[in-house]
Amino acid sequence: VSSTARTGRRKGVTKTREAIAAAARHAFAELGYDRATIRTIARSAGVDPALVVHFFGPKDALFVEVMASPVQSDAMARLAEEDRSTIGRRLAELVMTVMEDADGRAILLGRIRAASTEPAAVELVRETVVRNMAPLTAALTDDQPERRAALVGAHVVGIALARYVVEVEPLVEMTPEELVDALAPTFQRYLVEPLS
Amino acid sequence: VSSTARTGRRKGVTKTREAIAAAARHAFAELGYDRATIRTIARSAGVDPALVVHFFGPKDALFVEVMASPVQSDAMARLAEEDRSTIGRRLAELVMTVMEDADGRAILLGRIRAASTEPAAVELVRETVVRNMAPLTAALTDDQPERRAALVGAHVVGIALARYVVEVEPLVEMTPEELVDALAPTFQRYLVEPLS
Repeated sequence: VSSTARTGRRKGVTKTREAIAAAARHAFAELGYDRATIRTIARSAGVDPALVVHFFGPKDALFVEVMASPVQSDAMARLAEEDRSTIGRRLAELVMTVMEDADGRAILLGRIRAASTEPAAVELVRETVVRNMAPLTAALTDDQPERRAALVGAHVVGIALARYVVEVEPLVEMTPEELVDALAPTFQRYLVEPLS
Repeated sequence: VSSTARTGRRKGVTKTREAIAAAARHAFAELGYDRATIRTIARSAGVDPALVVHFFGPKDALFVEVMASPVQSDAMARLAEEDRSTIGRRLAELVMTVMEDADGRAILLGRIRAASTEPAAVELVRETVVRNMAPLTAALTDDQPERRAALVGAHVVGIALARYVVEVEPLVEMTPEELVDALAPTFQRYLVEPLS
Protein backbone atom coordinates (compact mmCIF):
# COMPACT_ATOMS: atom_id res chain seq x y z
CA VAL A 1 0.00 0.00 0.00
CA SER A 2 1.54 3.32 -1.08
CA SER A 3 1.55 6.30 1.27
CA THR A 4 -0.78 8.18 -1.12
CA ALA A 5 -3.35 5.41 -0.95
CA ARG A 6 -3.04 5.37 2.82
CA THR A 7 -3.57 9.14 3.02
CA GLY A 8 -6.53 8.81 0.68
CA ARG A 9 -8.08 6.14 2.86
CA ARG A 10 -7.42 8.20 5.97
CA LYS A 11 -9.07 11.22 4.40
CA GLY A 12 -12.05 9.04 3.47
CA VAL A 13 -12.32 7.80 7.05
CA THR A 14 -12.11 11.34 8.45
CA LYS A 15 -14.77 12.53 6.03
CA THR A 16 -17.13 9.67 6.91
CA ARG A 17 -16.54 10.25 10.62
CA GLU A 18 -17.32 13.94 10.23
CA ALA A 19 -20.46 13.18 8.21
CA ILE A 20 -21.67 10.87 10.97
CA ALA A 21 -20.86 13.46 13.67
CA ALA A 22 -22.76 16.20 11.78
CA ALA A 23 -25.75 13.89 11.21
CA ALA A 24 -25.74 12.93 14.91
CA ARG A 25 -25.53 16.54 16.07
CA HIS A 26 -28.54 17.53 13.99
CA ALA A 27 -30.53 14.42 14.90
CA PHE A 28 -29.98 15.04 18.62
CA ALA A 29 -30.90 18.73 18.20
CA GLU A 30 -34.05 18.06 16.19
CA LEU A 31 -35.38 14.80 17.65
CA GLY A 32 -34.03 14.82 21.19
CA TYR A 33 -31.81 12.10 22.65
CA ASP A 34 -34.33 9.27 22.98
CA ARG A 35 -35.76 9.58 19.48
CA ALA A 36 -32.44 10.07 17.69
CA THR A 37 -31.45 6.43 17.11
CA ILE A 38 -28.18 5.02 15.75
CA ARG A 39 -30.28 3.80 12.80
CA THR A 40 -31.72 7.26 11.93
CA ILE A 41 -28.29 8.87 12.33
CA ALA A 42 -26.67 6.24 10.07
CA ARG A 43 -29.39 6.66 7.46
CA SER A 44 -29.00 10.44 7.35
CA ALA A 45 -25.19 10.10 7.08
CA GLY A 46 -25.60 7.48 4.34
CA VAL A 47 -23.71 4.74 6.18
CA ASP A 48 -24.39 1.39 7.84
CA PRO A 49 -25.46 1.56 11.54
CA ALA A 50 -22.59 -0.80 12.38
CA LEU A 51 -20.12 1.79 11.13
CA VAL A 52 -21.55 4.42 13.51
CA VAL A 53 -21.01 2.05 16.44
CA HIS A 54 -17.56 1.11 15.12
CA PHE A 55 -16.45 4.76 15.09
CA PHE A 56 -18.21 6.12 18.17
CA GLY A 57 -19.39 3.23 20.33
CA PRO A 58 -22.89 3.17 21.89
CA LYS A 59 -25.31 6.09 21.69
CA ASP A 60 -24.29 7.80 24.94
CA ALA A 61 -20.61 7.83 23.88
CA LEU A 62 -21.59 9.16 20.43
CA PHE A 63 -23.63 11.89 22.09
CA VAL A 64 -20.83 13.05 24.37
CA GLU A 65 -18.27 13.06 21.57
CA VAL A 66 -20.28 15.07 19.03
CA MET A 67 -21.73 17.46 21.60
CA ALA A 68 -18.60 18.06 23.64
CA SER A 69 -16.95 20.80 21.59
CA PRO A 70 -16.95 23.90 23.78
CA VAL A 71 -19.13 26.77 22.61
CA GLN A 72 -16.82 29.67 21.69
CA SER A 73 -14.78 29.36 24.88
CA ASP A 74 -11.84 31.44 23.52
CA ALA A 75 -14.06 34.29 22.38
CA MET A 76 -15.83 34.09 25.74
CA ALA A 77 -12.58 34.45 27.69
CA ARG A 78 -11.46 37.42 25.57
CA LEU A 79 -14.64 39.37 26.44
CA ALA A 80 -13.22 40.16 29.88
CA GLU A 81 -10.20 41.93 28.39
CA GLU A 82 -12.19 44.85 27.02
CA ASP A 83 -14.28 47.66 28.55
CA ARG A 84 -16.40 46.23 31.35
CA SER A 85 -19.10 48.89 30.93
CA THR A 86 -20.11 47.14 27.67
CA ILE A 87 -19.55 43.54 28.79
CA GLY A 88 -23.29 42.69 28.93
CA ARG A 89 -23.87 43.79 25.35
CA ARG A 90 -20.77 42.06 24.01
CA LEU A 91 -21.74 38.79 25.72
CA ALA A 92 -25.30 39.09 24.36
CA GLU A 93 -23.86 39.57 20.86
CA LEU A 94 -21.64 36.50 21.21
CA VAL A 95 -24.52 34.40 22.54
CA MET A 96 -26.76 35.42 19.65
CA THR A 97 -23.96 34.69 17.14
CA VAL A 98 -23.62 31.14 18.52
CA MET A 99 -27.39 30.59 18.59
CA GLU A 100 -27.94 31.87 15.05
CA ASP A 101 -25.15 29.64 13.67
CA ALA A 102 -26.46 26.21 12.54
CA ASP A 103 -23.70 24.18 14.21
CA GLY A 104 -23.57 26.27 17.39
CA ARG A 105 -27.33 25.97 17.71
CA ALA A 106 -27.30 22.20 17.05
CA ILE A 107 -24.81 21.67 19.88
CA LEU A 108 -26.71 23.95 22.28
CA LEU A 109 -30.15 22.49 21.50
CA GLY A 110 -28.88 18.90 21.40
CA ARG A 111 -27.55 19.33 24.91
CA ILE A 112 -30.67 21.05 26.24
CA ARG A 113 -33.12 18.56 24.71
CA ALA A 114 -31.13 15.58 25.94
CA ALA A 115 -30.76 16.99 29.46
CA SER A 116 -34.32 15.96 30.25
CA THR A 117 -33.55 12.25 30.03
CA GLU A 118 -29.88 11.43 29.53
CA PRO A 119 -27.36 11.59 32.42
CA ALA A 120 -24.41 12.12 30.02
CA ALA A 121 -26.24 15.14 28.61
CA VAL A 122 -26.96 16.54 32.06
CA GLU A 123 -23.21 16.86 32.57
CA LEU A 124 -22.83 18.72 29.26
CA VAL A 125 -25.65 21.11 30.08
CA ARG A 126 -24.01 21.81 33.43
CA GLU A 127 -20.95 22.69 31.38
CA THR A 128 -23.05 24.93 29.12
CA VAL A 129 -24.60 26.72 32.05
CA VAL A 130 -21.57 27.18 34.27
CA ARG A 131 -18.20 26.04 32.96
CA ASN A 132 -18.39 27.93 29.64
CA MET A 133 -19.26 31.13 31.46
CA ALA A 134 -17.23 30.72 34.67
CA PRO A 135 -13.81 31.84 33.34
CA LEU A 136 -15.45 35.04 32.14
CA THR A 137 -17.14 35.87 35.46
CA ALA A 138 -14.03 34.85 37.42
CA ALA A 139 -11.97 37.32 35.35
CA LEU A 140 -14.50 40.08 36.01
CA THR A 141 -15.17 39.91 39.74
CA ASP A 142 -14.53 37.92 42.90
CA ASP A 143 -18.06 38.60 44.20
CA GLN A 144 -19.92 35.28 43.62
CA PRO A 145 -18.52 34.62 40.12
CA GLU A 146 -20.05 31.11 39.92
CA ARG A 147 -23.56 32.30 40.76
CA ARG A 148 -23.20 35.03 38.14
CA ALA A 149 -22.10 32.49 35.53
CA ALA A 150 -25.02 30.22 36.44
CA LEU A 151 -27.61 33.02 36.25
CA VAL A 152 -26.43 34.08 32.79
CA GLY A 153 -26.15 30.45 31.63
CA ALA A 154 -29.65 29.60 32.87
CA HIS A 155 -31.06 32.61 31.02
CA VAL A 156 -29.27 31.61 27.79
CA VAL A 157 -30.64 28.07 28.08
CA GLY A 158 -34.16 29.41 28.69
CA ILE A 159 -34.02 31.72 25.67
CA ALA A 160 -32.65 28.90 23.46
CA LEU A 161 -35.40 26.51 24.58
CA ALA A 162 -38.14 29.11 24.14
CA ARG A 163 -36.96 30.50 20.78
CA TYR A 164 -35.79 27.37 18.96
CA VAL A 165 -37.42 24.32 20.59
CA VAL A 166 -40.81 25.55 21.80
CA GLU A 167 -40.86 28.39 19.27
CA VAL A 168 -42.59 30.93 21.48
CA GLU A 169 -43.86 33.45 18.94
CA PRO A 170 -42.80 36.79 20.43
CA LEU A 171 -39.24 35.45 20.81
CA VAL A 172 -39.14 33.85 17.34
CA GLU A 173 -40.20 37.18 15.84
CA MET A 174 -37.46 39.18 17.54
CA THR A 175 -34.36 39.82 15.40
CA PRO A 176 -30.98 38.89 16.90
CA GLU A 177 -30.35 42.65 17.31
CA GLU A 178 -33.58 43.13 19.26
CA LEU A 179 -32.69 40.21 21.49
CA VAL A 180 -29.24 41.68 22.10
CA ASP A 181 -30.92 44.96 23.18
CA ALA A 182 -33.26 43.08 25.53
CA LEU A 183 -30.62 40.79 27.05
CA ALA A 184 -27.64 43.18 27.30
CA PRO A 185 -28.71 45.05 30.49
CA THR A 186 -29.67 41.75 32.19
CA PHE A 187 -26.28 40.20 31.40
CA GLN A 188 -24.55 43.46 32.44
CA ARG A 189 -26.15 43.22 35.87
CA TYR A 190 -25.55 39.49 36.33
CA LEU A 191 -21.90 39.92 35.29
CA VAL A 192 -20.68 43.01 37.14
CA GLU A 193 -23.38 44.76 39.18
CA PRO A 194 -24.45 43.90 42.76
CA LEU A 195 -26.60 40.73 42.85
CA SER A 196 -28.79 41.79 45.80
CA VAL B 1 -78.16 0.69 44.78
CA SER B 2 -78.73 3.31 47.49
CA SER B 3 -77.62 6.91 46.97
CA THR B 4 -75.04 6.51 49.76
CA ALA B 5 -73.40 3.59 47.98
CA ARG B 6 -73.39 5.56 44.76
CA THR B 7 -71.69 8.55 46.46
CA GLY B 8 -69.18 6.15 48.01
CA ARG B 9 -68.36 4.66 44.64
CA ARG B 10 -68.04 8.10 43.07
CA LYS B 11 -65.70 9.22 45.84
CA GLY B 12 -63.62 6.07 45.28
CA VAL B 13 -63.42 6.81 41.56
CA THR B 14 -62.39 10.43 42.18
CA LYS B 15 -59.73 9.31 44.63
CA THR B 16 -58.31 6.73 42.23
CA ARG B 17 -58.34 9.27 39.39
CA GLU B 18 -56.49 11.78 41.55
CA ALA B 19 -53.93 9.18 42.62
CA ILE B 20 -53.25 8.35 38.96
CA ALA B 21 -52.99 12.05 38.06
CA ALA B 22 -50.50 12.70 40.89
CA ALA B 23 -48.44 9.63 39.95
CA ALA B 24 -48.43 10.74 36.30
CA ARG B 25 -47.39 14.29 37.16
CA HIS B 26 -44.44 13.10 39.20
CA ALA B 27 -43.41 10.44 36.65
CA PHE B 28 -43.41 13.01 33.83
CA ALA B 29 -41.44 15.49 35.99
CA GLU B 30 -38.85 12.94 37.10
CA LEU B 31 -38.47 10.66 34.07
CA GLY B 32 -39.42 12.91 31.17
CA TYR B 33 -42.24 12.15 28.72
CA ASP B 34 -40.71 9.26 26.77
CA ARG B 35 -39.57 7.29 29.81
CA ALA B 36 -42.70 7.79 31.88
CA THR B 37 -44.81 4.90 30.59
CA ILE B 38 -48.47 4.08 31.32
CA ARG B 39 -47.12 0.95 33.02
CA THR B 40 -44.78 2.83 35.42
CA ILE B 41 -47.48 5.38 36.20
CA ALA B 42 -50.03 2.61 36.92
CA ARG B 43 -47.55 0.78 39.13
CA SER B 44 -46.76 3.87 41.20
CA ALA B 45 -50.50 4.64 41.59
CA GLY B 46 -51.17 1.01 42.55
CA VAL B 47 -53.67 0.35 39.74
CA ASP B 48 -53.90 -1.69 36.55
CA PRO B 49 -52.51 0.00 33.39
CA ALA B 50 -55.88 -0.57 31.70
CA LEU B 51 -57.53 1.63 34.32
CA VAL B 52 -55.14 4.51 33.51
CA VAL B 53 -56.14 4.26 29.84
CA HIS B 54 -59.81 3.90 30.78
CA PHE B 55 -59.74 7.17 32.77
CA PHE B 56 -57.37 9.29 30.69
CA GLY B 57 -56.95 7.70 27.24
CA PRO B 58 -53.52 7.36 25.59
CA LYS B 59 -50.34 8.86 27.06
CA ASP B 60 -50.47 12.20 25.22
CA ALA B 61 -54.05 12.81 26.45
CA LEU B 62 -53.02 11.82 30.00
CA PHE B 63 -50.10 14.23 29.81
CA VAL B 64 -52.19 17.18 28.69
CA GLU B 65 -54.86 16.54 31.30
CA VAL B 66 -52.56 16.24 34.32
CA MET B 67 -50.21 19.03 33.22
CA ALA B 68 -52.83 21.50 32.04
CA SER B 69 -53.72 23.16 35.32
CA PRO B 70 -52.57 26.77 35.04
CA VAL B 71 -49.75 27.79 37.32
CA GLN B 72 -51.10 30.35 39.81
CA SER B 73 -52.88 32.36 37.09
CA ASP B 74 -55.13 34.21 39.58
CA ALA B 75 -52.25 35.24 41.81
CA MET B 76 -50.34 36.27 38.69
CA ALA B 77 -53.14 38.54 37.48
CA ARG B 78 -53.49 40.17 40.92
CA LEU B 79 -49.82 41.22 40.91
CA ALA B 80 -50.61 44.03 38.49
CA GLU B 81 -53.08 45.61 40.92
CA GLU B 82 -50.41 46.65 43.42
CA ASP B 83 -47.44 49.05 43.37
CA ARG B 84 -45.61 48.69 40.06
CA SER B 85 -42.28 49.77 41.55
CA THR B 86 -42.16 46.41 43.38
CA ILE B 87 -43.67 44.25 40.61
CA GLY B 88 -40.37 42.50 39.74
CA ARG B 89 -39.80 41.38 43.31
CA ARG B 90 -43.41 40.26 43.83
CA LEU B 91 -43.32 38.21 40.62
CA ALA B 92 -39.96 36.67 41.61
CA GLU B 93 -41.49 35.72 44.98
CA LEU B 94 -44.51 34.11 43.31
CA VAL B 95 -42.30 32.21 40.84
CA MET B 96 -40.11 30.86 43.65
CA THR B 97 -43.21 29.86 45.66
CA VAL B 98 -44.50 27.82 42.69
CA MET B 99 -41.09 26.25 42.01
CA GLU B 100 -40.48 25.31 45.65
CA ASP B 101 -43.92 23.68 45.92
CA ALA B 102 -43.83 19.95 45.02
CA ASP B 103 -46.93 20.04 42.80
CA GLY B 104 -46.12 23.37 41.15
CA ARG B 105 -42.62 22.13 40.41
CA ALA B 106 -43.88 18.79 39.04
CA ILE B 107 -46.15 20.58 36.58
CA LEU B 108 -43.44 23.04 35.52
CA LEU B 109 -40.70 20.41 35.15
CA GLY B 110 -43.02 17.85 33.52
CA ARG B 111 -43.84 20.42 30.84
CA ILE B 112 -40.23 21.52 30.32
CA ARG B 113 -38.80 17.99 30.14
CA ALA B 114 -41.50 16.84 27.73
CA ALA B 115 -41.11 19.88 25.49
CA SER B 116 -37.98 18.36 23.98
CA THR B 117 -39.87 15.52 22.34
CA GLU B 118 -43.63 15.74 22.67
CA PRO B 119 -45.72 18.10 20.50
CA ALA B 120 -48.56 18.20 23.06
CA ALA B 121 -46.03 19.35 25.64
CA VAL B 122 -44.61 22.03 23.37
CA GLU B 123 -48.02 23.69 23.39
CA LEU B 124 -48.12 23.61 27.22
CA VAL B 125 -44.63 25.09 27.50
CA ARG B 126 -45.68 27.86 25.13
CA GLU B 127 -48.49 28.44 27.60
CA THR B 128 -46.00 28.45 30.49
CA VAL B 129 -43.74 30.91 28.78
CA VAL B 130 -46.27 33.33 27.36
CA ARG B 131 -49.92 32.77 28.20
CA ASN B 132 -49.46 32.53 31.97
CA MET B 133 -47.51 35.75 32.01
CA ALA B 134 -49.27 37.70 29.22
CA PRO B 135 -52.30 38.95 31.22
CA LEU B 136 -49.86 40.42 33.75
CA THR B 137 -47.72 42.26 31.20
CA ALA B 138 -50.81 43.40 29.27
CA ALA B 139 -52.20 44.94 32.47
CA LEU B 140 -48.89 46.74 33.11
CA THR B 141 -47.99 48.30 29.77
CA ASP B 142 -48.93 48.52 26.10
CA ASP B 143 -45.26 48.64 25.05
CA GLN B 144 -44.56 45.12 23.68
CA PRO B 145 -46.40 43.22 26.45
CA GLU B 146 -46.04 39.83 24.69
CA ARG B 147 -42.27 40.15 24.29
CA ARG B 148 -42.00 41.10 27.95
CA ALA B 149 -44.04 38.06 28.98
CA ALA B 150 -41.89 35.82 26.78
CA LEU B 151 -38.60 37.18 28.16
CA VAL B 152 -39.71 36.61 31.76
CA GLY B 153 -41.17 33.20 30.91
CA ALA B 154 -38.00 32.09 29.12
CA HIS B 155 -35.91 33.14 32.11
CA VAL B 156 -38.18 31.22 34.51
CA VAL B 157 -37.94 28.10 32.33
CA GLY B 158 -34.14 28.41 32.19
CA ILE B 159 -33.84 28.75 35.97
CA ALA B 160 -36.18 25.79 36.54
CA LEU B 161 -34.21 23.59 34.12
CA ALA B 162 -30.85 24.62 35.60
CA ARG B 163 -31.84 24.38 39.28
CA TYR B 164 -34.07 21.30 39.33
CA VAL B 165 -33.31 19.18 36.23
CA VAL B 166 -29.62 19.75 35.52
CA GLU B 167 -28.93 20.72 39.15
CA VAL B 168 -26.32 23.35 38.41
CA GLU B 169 -24.56 23.69 41.76
CA PRO B 170 -24.40 27.47 42.28
CA LEU B 171 -28.17 27.66 41.58
CA VAL B 172 -29.05 24.64 43.74
CA GLU B 173 -27.16 26.23 46.63
CA MET B 174 -29.01 29.54 46.44
CA THR B 175 -31.92 29.91 48.86
CA PRO B 176 -35.29 30.96 47.39
CA GLU B 177 -34.69 34.38 49.03
CA GLU B 178 -31.32 34.78 47.33
CA LEU B 179 -32.85 33.83 44.01
CA VAL B 180 -35.64 36.39 44.54
CA ASP B 181 -32.95 39.05 45.15
CA ALA B 182 -31.10 38.04 41.97
CA LEU B 183 -34.17 37.79 39.73
CA ALA B 184 -36.24 40.75 40.99
CA PRO B 185 -34.37 43.55 39.13
CA THR B 186 -34.33 41.48 35.92
CA PHE B 187 -38.07 40.87 36.09
CA GLN B 188 -38.64 44.54 37.02
CA ARG B 189 -36.88 45.61 33.82
CA TYR B 190 -38.56 43.04 31.58
CA LEU B 191 -41.98 43.95 33.00
CA VAL B 192 -42.04 47.75 33.11
CA GLU B 193 -38.77 49.39 32.02
CA PRO B 194 -37.69 50.22 28.44
CA LEU B 195 -36.61 47.07 26.54
CA SER B 196 -33.97 48.74 24.38
